[in-house]
Amino acid sequence: MAERLNGLKRSHMCGTLREENIGNTVTVMGWVQRKRNLGGLIFIDLRDRTGLVQVVLGDEIDKAAFLKADNVKSEYVIAVSGEVVKRSSVNTTLPTGMIEILGKDIKILGESETPPIIIKEDLDTSEAIRLKYRYLDLRRPDMQRNMIIRHKTAKIARDFLDDNGFIEIETPILTKSTPEGARDYLVPSRVSPGNFYALPQSPQLFKQLLMLSGYDRYFQIAKCFRDEDLRANRQPEFTQIDMELSFVDVDDVIDVNERLLQRIFKEIHNIDLSVPFLRMPYKEAMDRFGSDKPDIRFGMELKSLNDIVKASDFKVFKDALLNGGDVRAINAAGCGDFGRKDIDRLTDFVKTFGAKGLAWIALNNGEIKSPISKFLSENEMSEIIKRTEAKDGDLILIVADKSKVVYASLGQLRLEIARKLGILDGNIEHKFLWVTEFPLLEYDEEEKRYVAVHHPFTSPMDEDIEYLEKEPGRVRAKAYDIVLNGEELGGGSIRIHDSKLQEKMFGIIGLEMNTAWEKFGYLLEAFKYGTPPHGGLAFGFDRLIMFLVNTDNIRDVIAFPKTKEASDPLTDAPSTVDEAQLLELGIALIPNKINS
Amino acid sequence: MAERLNGLKRSHMCGTLREENIGNTVTVMGWVQRKRNLGGLIFIDLRDRTGLVQVVLGDEIDKAAFLKADNVKSEYVIAVSGEVVKRSSVNTTLPTGMIEILGKDIKILGESETPPIIIKEDLDTSEAIRLKYRYLDLRRPDMQRNMIIRHKTAKIARDFLDDNGFIEIETPILTKSTPEGARDYLVPSRVSPGNFYALPQSPQLFKQLLMLSGYDRYFQIAKCFRDEDLRANRQPEFTQIDMELSFVDVDDVIDVNERLLQRIFKEIHNIDLSVPFLRMPYKEAMDRFGSDKPDIRFGMELKSLNDIVKASDFKVFKDALLNGGDVRAINAAGCGDFGRKDIDRLTDFVKTFGAKGLAWIALNNGEIKSPISKFLSENEMSEIIKRTEAKDGDLILIVADKSKVVYASLGQLRLEIARKLGILDGNIEHKFLWVTEFPLLEYDEEEKRYVAVHHPFTSPMDEDIEYLEKEPGRVRAKAYDIVLNGEELGGGSIRIHDSKLQEKMFGIIGLEMNTAWEKFGYLLEAFKYGTPPHGGLAFGFDRLIMFLVNTDNIRDVIAFPKTKEASDPLTDAPSTVDEAQLLELGIALIPNKINS
Repeated sequence: MAERLNGLKRSHMCGTLREENIGNTVTVMGWVQRKRNLGGLIFIDLRDRTGLVQVVLGDEIDKAAFLKADNVKSEYVIAVSGEVVKRSSVNTTLPTGMIEILGKDIKILGESETPPIIIKEDLDTSEAIRLKYRYLDLRRPDMQRNMIIRHKTAKIARDFLDDNGFIEIETPILTKSTPEGARDYLVPSRVSPGNFYALPQSPQLFKQLLMLSGYDRYFQIAKCFRDEDLRANRQPEFTQIDMELSFVDVDDVIDVNERLLQRIFKEIHNIDLSVPFLRMPYKEAMDRFGSDKPDIRFGMELKSLNDIVKASDFKVFKDALLNGGDVRAINAAGCGDFGRKDIDRLTDFVKTFGAKGLAWIALNNGEIKSPISKFLSENEMSEIIKRTEAKDGDLILIVADKSKVVYASLGQLRLEIARKLGILDGNIEHKFLWVTEFPLLEYDEEEKRYVAVHHPFTSPMDEDIEYLEKEPGRVRAKAYDIVLNGEELGGGSIRIHDSKLQEKMFGIIGLEMNTAWEKFGYLLEAFKYGTPPHGGLAFGFDRLIMFLVNTDNIRDVIAFPKTKEASDPLTDAPSTVDEAQLLELGIALIPNKINS
Repeated sequence: MAERLNGLKRSHMCGTLREENIGNTVTVMGWVQRKRNLGGLIFIDLRDRTGLVQVVLGDEIDKAAFLKADNVKSEYVIAVSGEVVKRSSVNTTLPTGMIEILGKDIKILGESETPPIIIKEDLDTSEAIRLKYRYLDLRRPDMQRNMIIRHKTAKIARDFLDDNGFIEIETPILTKSTPEGARDYLVPSRVSPGNFYALPQSPQLFKQLLMLSGYDRYFQIAKCFRDEDLRANRQPEFTQIDMELSFVDVDDVIDVNERLLQRIFKEIHNIDLSVPFLRMPYKEAMDRFGSDKPDIRFGMELKSLNDIVKASDFKVFKDALLNGGDVRAINAAGCGDFGRKDIDRLTDFVKTFGAKGLAWIALNNGEIKSPISKFLSENEMSEIIKRTEAKDGDLILIVADKSKVVYASLGQLRLEIARKLGILDGNIEHKFLWVTEFPLLEYDEEEKRYVAVHHPFTSPMDEDIEYLEKEPGRVRAKAYDIVLNGEELGGGSIRIHDSKLQEKMFGIIGLEMNTAWEKFGYLLEAFKYGTPPHGGLAFGFDRLIMFLVNTDNIRDVIAFPKTKEASDPLTDAPSTVDEAQLLELGIALIPNKINS
């Protein structure tokens, strides 16, 4: 049976012992990383959250301790008391490598079977096993580092926001659907059967209410929920740094968030981010990078060829322009020698984004090769080369299609080629970018009406209000996203704070006032009683941590995550429940749905 | 329509202006608390989170501003720019009362209809209205103070725990039932219809897993959920300061939590709590106060009369003792003149706790009056008076029954009399108390077996392990509750960290290993791979804040609480959902259940 502490106290953490502790009598407690019995001496690497320390137990140091130590195996939990001494063979790879502990007493606090996961960095084990034995996976030093950085980042964010006058206020988990568009998780009510709570997709409406309650600056590191089919880096429950400010405009929100990121990067990685970050209107981001979250660590920008090919007889270009579309190109510098197979693969790639094909012009060894050269005049060809700044050895790639398709396919092609060429390998820059001036509304072809791009509470830009009714598609929003190396870290907007403007907005998106009232009536009612100008932003906290610990797997930054099937192999959630429980809730399973 | 900020910036918060600002040109923004038009001068009390400031607008100061100011009404949101000047009629009740702002420019940022709630302290409005218009209720200064104290307390707790080596780790909200005994909220899974997540009643099992993952010290300010019928101060979702520590015993957990409370009370109220707090074993608490959460701010302790009346012929006493019960008394000092009606009311009171009756002995004006005097010998009577230290003017109250009933009824009667006499009126003490050495197991008469008092992972006291099998009822647990002025603030225990002892424990409570395995198999599996000694504690955060802001209504410390029917009159949650949503989840409503 495991021994008890019986008053024994730990004096130090394993990884903290240094030369200055030499001569101290210490008691350390932790897990056995490794044990070697070299005849008269047993060496134990003992591990805790702070690192490893070497313990030596000798026949001659203490016979009883030596014999007990001989029983321990990997992952046993032990307590060792002894003297810190200078280590004969210094280990420079360990912070504690200058010293070791001469063990005089040992207690076995917990035994261990051979664990199904090796407790070491960079484990090459299937994720299914890692999640099933999550408690062992979390024991690995890299996962511990990730969790500690997550804790520290939350702490820094809270300290910063508190310093800047923000108040953290908890909003409900059991609430009503928020109008965010994604699917809600529902919770049946037992007290009023037939009714359901929804888990919040974000605290959006509550934080707006708090602004008109006068809290001035709210934040919350908040759990949010979306019942969506999970893509690689989505989780059914995720965490946001959510904030809202009163009496502010775009610049104020951007400023406070730049300083927040500055503090986080400084304190976690000692990196000095220079502010203000670059800002780029949505339209420019699309035109230049084909994306509203461009990776600006490299060029290969999109160039419009519309003016050059407007008189071209080439049917693909002509049709695209006639249909109001675009002809755009990127210059894949250094790819002039790509073979047919390479280009076929790129063509297949752009097709997944809706492009019908990929035209190309290769400049290689002084020759110009292109399947479309026969359709282009000499002048057109030379203008294209000039526009794309292509030189010998380069490859011009062209898509002609609806603008949306051109942006998506070239924007992604640009990233794909960068990956192929390894342009960003070893790049450790943090290129932050604010994308601003998003369109407020977009026309939904299916619904035959304008819909809100962000959400219907987003404020139009002051100078565009006049176009709201006549040219809704032209109106830009006071919305902003913060982008880091091509990934959206967060986003937000200034909200409408005028109920008349809000009503007009609902009218434009074809939401009748009684429907609007039904959906967010309490917010509209609240707006009647003195609403300050306000706006906010939410960071994807999990994604921020992914950047800080440099992983592309969201499950590396969440202690107990779900699989892509939204299940937890550790606890076996979700699972069946007793019929009596369902009866109490007034619900029943639909049999053929369950069996299917 | 409301005006826009158009670059206008706030320079100060309203409540922060002081004499040293005299001469400054400032811009403040906030809500109109009150407007008075005294002919050529308009006075506006402007309010934000920090307090009130007086603005004066005059015909002669700025005509346009004066005319605009004349349009504002209570709760309008305005921005005012002007000069800070010395106030002619100083208002000593306001921190800003030495100054006022001569308004030179004014913007109406948001209009307001007459609000259904008056924005003032100590509002005497029904809770139903307060919750429906929560955003206005939250605008009241006392609610703002409560929310700010809540924020600050969470901040102080996080700072303290971070300073003491704790790491905050988020545990899942979508999880599997925890074995806490209360009813779970369920969340149907869409991906695997027929299966359900449960919302956590506490992060208990996750925090234990984190200990064996080597995190050493974990904490979380965690949302927890219980689908219970709501008593006055219960909410379906509530917040805990939850923590767990490795390599510790009872004293370590108690020590860190005393220091945490010390820091909170110091920083919030500048109160110096003296530590260590008093500790009292469960048995002593019951014997002396009839309660495991005694209010020790006053005496009136329970006294056993068993030895005095053991030979008595009085049937009530005799029966109680024959059945293994107790005869105990309290001395309601100064109540010797209670009339028949007063005593009848006390009798009715103890009956609600299961007592069959209340015997009494009144010492008034040198006389002893008692309905039971005829059953007592002179010696018995004098011994009872001696034991209870009753003097002339006092009232001895006696209950004879099963021990449980005696404790409950006299423990509550003690509190009831203290309320009646106003013993604690104006008492501002904070009498903290640790109740320790709880029984590990209690015999369940219905189930005819022992059950865990706390939960089945609680460790027995080292010196009582030997009685586990032979005398389970005698075994005390390493469990502790922290009690403040008679309210339980939190509790916890040292856990079993030895799987053999854990198996024995399951055996004693008649939980077969395969059932245990099904319920918490992953924890038992986890325990095989090196478990450190560990233990923890959880504070009811909402209740802690109730103490700090001095309210007895839990809804005063939660921004968006639920009613006793677990509903939210503001958002109208819970509410009906589309049948299509339910179909996707594979569930249907049971019609007659809904209509009933």
